[in-house]
Amino acid sequence: MERVEVLLVEDDPNDADLVLHVLRKNNIANEVHVVEDGKEALDFLFCRGDYSDRDITHPPKLVLLDLKLPHVQGHDVLKQVRENEKTRSIPVVILTSSGLDYDITKGYKLGVNSYVQKPVDFDEFQKAVELLGRYWLTLNKTSIE
Amino acid sequence: MERVEVLLVEDDPNDADLVLHVLRKNNIANEVHVVEDGKEALDFLFCRGDYSDRDITHPPKLVLLDLKLPHVQGHDVLKQVRENEKTRSIPVVILTSSGLDYDITKGYKLGVNSYVQKPVDFDEFQKAVELLGRYWLTLNKTSIE
Repeated sequence: MERVEVLLVEDDPNDADLVLHVLRKNNIANEVHVVEDGKEALDFLFCRGDYSDRDITHPPKLVLLDLKLPHVQGHDVLKQVRENEKTRSIPVVILTSSGLDYDITKGYKLGVNSYVQKPVDFDEFQKAVELLGRYWLTLNKTSIE
Repeated sequence: MERVEVLLVEDDPNDADLVLHVLRKNNIANEVHVVEDGKEALDFLFCRGDYSDRDITHPPKLVLLDLKLPHVQGHDVLKQVRENEKTRSIPVVILTSSGLDYDITKGYKLGVNSYVQKPVDFDEFQKAVELLGRYWLTLNKTSIE
């Protein structure tokens, strides 16, 4: 199984398709795994349930995390990832339509690496995802490469 | 006084010049303040000493932090920034020549937002700074804007 480079936690299929398209078209990431709710994101990251065959020592290079999610909200996913020694250093970027100061502040308090508000304009959204992907997948270094 | 957008903590004048040049040439940031050691970086961020006229509620949008620094090392600057409620949410990116796993791991454990190794090649270094600047200063959102 190819190593998953990006875990995309996104319940809006249109937004998920856009992110996948941009990352693949620009050869930024081919191995992107999409989950639609916070519970499945946690199962994936902690290698539980349907993902018990995954290896927790091979985490994705980037988690793109929406905030408003079914079952477990984005901030709660982030909190659990940061509380566990095995997952706490995984780069997590919140990618959300919310620009609320409350959401931004809470994200940084919980230790998010970066917070990006989805642009409303389609072209701007594409450009944002390309910049985000290039930065985190080609320039940022993790200790887990 | 214009608000400082970037605090650049860099003791190598050639590297500092390159970063300043790239950020200004591309209109990514005009207000960049350079300090050459870790002690002065802390004075700036905590508004002490020569920087006692600064307002701690108006932090820079980004700190670019070298690791090997006179007086106070980069990791120690990061530690103090993360331990203080007033400064803990400031985005800090380590920008260093070191690619050592020890340095990367320690950086993430101390809560760095991102870790970028300076490319040895001059053109690659310029491109890296441009990408880094665009990402953190035009796309990333902070609660302190």
